[in-house]
Amino acid sequence: MTETVRFHELGGPEVLRLEDIAVGEPGPGEVRILVDAIGVNRAEVLFRSGHYIESVTRFPARLGTEAAGVVEAVGHGVTGLRIGQPVSTVPAFSQNDYGVYAERAIVPAAAVLRRPEGLGAVDGAAVWMPYVTAYGALVEVGGMRPGDTVVLNAASSSVGLAAIQVVDRMGAVPIALTRTAAKKDALLKQGAAEVIVTESEDIAGRVMDATGGRGAEFVFDAVAGPGLAELAGLVAPEGTHLVYGALSGEPTPYPGIDLGMPALSIRTYTLYETTQRPERLRRAAAFVASGLRSGAFRPVVDRTFELAEVVEAHRYMESNAQIGKIVITVTH
Amino acid sequence: MTETVRFHELGGPEVLRLEDIAVGEPGPGEVRILVDAIGVNRAEVLFRSGHYIESVTRFPARLGTEAAGVVEAVGHGVTGLRIGQPVSTVPAFSQNDYGVYAERAIVPAAAVLRRPEGLGAVDGAAVWMPYVTAYGALVEVGGMRPGDTVVLNAASSSVGLAAIQVVDRMGAVPIALTRTAAKKDALLKQGAAEVIVTESEDIAGRVMDATGGRGAEFVFDAVAGPGLAELAGLVAPEGTHLVYGALSGEPTPYPGIDLGMPALSIRTYTLYETTQRPERLRRAAAFVASGLRSGAFRPVVDRTFELAEVVEAHRYMESNAQIGKIVITVTH
Repeated sequence: MTETVRFHELGGPEVLRLEDIAVGEPGPGEVRILVDAIGVNRAEVLFRSGHYIESVTRFPARLGTEAAGVVEAVGHGVTGLRIGQPVSTVPAFSQNDYGVYAERAIVPAAAVLRRPEGLGAVDGAAVWMPYVTAYGALVEVGGMRPGDTVVLNAASSSVGLAAIQVVDRMGAVPIALTRTAAKKDALLKQGAAEVIVTESEDIAGRVMDATGGRGAEFVFDAVAGPGLAELAGLVAPEGTHLVYGALSGEPTPYPGIDLGMPALSIRTYTLYETTQRPERLRRAAAFVASGLRSGAFRPVVDRTFELAEVVEAHRYMESNAQIGKIVITVTH
Repeated sequence: MTETVRFHELGGPEVLRLEDIAVGEPGPGEVRILVDAIGVNRAEVLFRSGHYIESVTRFPARLGTEAAGVVEAVGHGVTGLRIGQPVSTVPAFSQNDYGVYAERAIVPAAAVLRRPEGLGAVDGAAVWMPYVTAYGALVEVGGMRPGDTVVLNAASSSVGLAAIQVVDRMGAVPIALTRTAAKKDALLKQGAAEVIVTESEDIAGRVMDATGGRGAEFVFDAVAGPGLAELAGLVAPEGTHLVYGALSGEPTPYPGIDLGMPALSIRTYTLYETTQRPERLRRAAAFVASGLRSGAFRPVVDRTFELAEVVEAHRYMESNAQIGKIVITVTH
């Protein structure tokens, strides 16, 4: 039997329960993984509470898409993966179909990446979602080039920190927004070229200064809502405002017309665009592995919890106090 | 002295006055044109009434960016244009700086195109804005390819009709939206692959049918406002919703989040992106001239007015009864 996190109704962190269920054998195209660590993502908080872009289709529901572990069983037709291999899973499937918050989990083989040499389980559960999200949006979709300026919010989140490092590694210029001065030094230390404290500084003035009046080639926006218009106004002509989250939870007015019809693209993006296409995922994985090898990418793990502390892990995610990733570890 | 349309206050068509003023000599980089015909555009109606993306900066104000005529005088430093040459102007300047609603007008040489052999003054004032707008948005910015589907509204406008022909000429598939059945046959005759009557037909069902469930690679939208979300929902993954006008006049919600974060670009576009860049304008002019030569592009002039009837011309534009272009002719 396998300890597995499930929930029987939508709600706060307390709806999560650890239940002992039979996980079974992997079907065609699937593998079973002995899970050592689990990455906790905003998507799970939203899925659990009924606010995700995808609704829960049946209860009891499972949770989680990002895990590190070892292959324990391989289903029919799976190639390139063998029992005993250290791997990570990436978010490339629906939580209605699979969930990795468990001691063991069955996942589609297409969502499994071999873990690079030297990448432990905790980092292996912390690294893919953030770096693949940032790489896919900025490089694959956006076509970011050296010298481009990227303004990003939610900068202390795991994706925000990864984006700073991805932008930096490409020879582009990351400018991080942060509400208060509390996280400013941490963000500079992570590689932000500039940090703008939004509650006390003139965002537009600072960005225009930093770009010689040109504006930023990209805004990388996890928040959306009423503040989207101000950020869209920072985008250089023919630049792109990438919207990859909607943390604000409020309605988002379309700003293009009020801004006077500039040459502005606003592009919604989720990492599924990258993880569900084998060619893109192959490039993303190579890019991330290369950054890890060189030391350019330093996954930031804020704190770990035990599987039995899953409720606390979600509460901590919702507190927004973290800098970087929250990881759940599994002891076998 | 030169009869010139000016207005001394914002307002309805009746604020337009025909006034006799001295037009003077062209300065460096400018030419003076003896105007034979003037294209009437929505931008002028909006500029006159104070609803354009650019405000009137001083009164009396002039109007108009699109004219056909003959070069009458050439300023210092202008190359490639000579007196007596048939030309057209394209919208590449602000109406606060220049206006072509006049018997003679000074314009920047960069906004002047030689008129192709055989293109008369009326067609020469009707052709550039519509075809360059559609070409620039769909081909230069959008990268439209053969087989792409383009859904467009305001289909009976001069830009709408030109877009149908541009899409058709590129081997792509134009689907025209029209409110009532009244203009349906005219749109099919202009080359629309399909016409959807929006007040009585299921837009999404028709577009998904026509594209095998894929959606349209492009929406070409002159209207924006609350209806933008429905059209954005028709866009295929990685497709682009091009917003080139805001005829609705109402606020526009951003639809990306409610649509579930699809791979959707929403791109504001004005033809200035094309006309103010010499390389793009050169390609656009060649593309339009080629379409005219082959007969693929057939500018549609709904009705002509005399210069003295400028108020009536604007009233008629505001009636929205026209199919194609309204042109003012000038008798010398």
